[in-house]
Amino acid sequence: MDDALAQARVEAARVARLATVTPEGRPHLVPCCFVLAGATVYSAVDGKPKTTLALRRLANVAANPHAALLVDHYDDDWSTLWWIRVDGTARVVADPSERESAIARLTAKYPQYARTPPPGAVLALDVTGWRSWP
Amino acid sequence: MDDALAQARVEAARVARLATVTPEGRPHLVPCCFVLAGATVYSAVDGKPKTTLALRRLANVAANPHAALLVDHYDDDWSTLWWIRVDGTARVVADPSERESAIARLTAKYPQYARTPPPGAVLALDVTGWRSWP
Repeated sequence: MDDALAQARVEAARVARLATVTPEGRPHLVPCCFVLAGATVYSAVDGKPKTTLALRRLANVAANPHAALLVDHYDDDWSTLWWIRVDGTARVVADPSERESAIARLTAKYPQYARTPPPGAVLALDVTGWRSWP
Repeated sequence: MDDALAQARVEAARVARLATVTPEGRPHLVPCCFVLAGATVYSAVDGKPKTTLALRRLANVAANPHAALLVDHYDDDWSTLWWIRVDGTARVVADPSERESAIARLTAKYPQYARTPPPGAVLALDVTGWRSWP
């Protein structure tokens, strides 16, 4: 698929899967809501339940910033399958204005966040490359 | 969710996402069809297109066998969300009878494989732990 279609599909997707790597070198994988803003993907860590699971990805990117986000389409008609993987480096958003802008973008995409704004950290994935199939 | 529900959901899922780690410590992430057989998850590397992408996960697990498989459900009604992550160690199936058995299980789950049996490698993920939410 061409870059414009890949970008449109990523923008339209409601869910993605985010992979990071633990300090022990194990992959860590969670589904997440996200928004693409230029060359950065933002996602919020849900405040509840406030488990170590939610914090794991933050500890991971502090130790190893490499991360990957996958958007894909599955159907039992395998002629319609596609996926797009966004590779990049991740960081916890520290700047208050960048965090505010990211939350606004997330809320514009997901009305659910308007009722319950994400109270926790916002993760930024600065895109370094895309892969898509087919 | 309890273990029985988690297992039933994993068995019923048609697609999962598989994360491995490259020798450079970057996460690698692909969607895959799979079948759960006892404490092992099998997936086949599609023969076509025979790109380096399909081979990457095999090289990754040869260097670092840690892998994770994620099955999840997304809906805009966030009260219905759930996910299950299976962590384990991955290996390319070398034993011909284990490969034959895995292909038979994959074909029983996916009729698509009956028409075009996967010609390439079969990956086994030997499960070491489960996480589920909520």
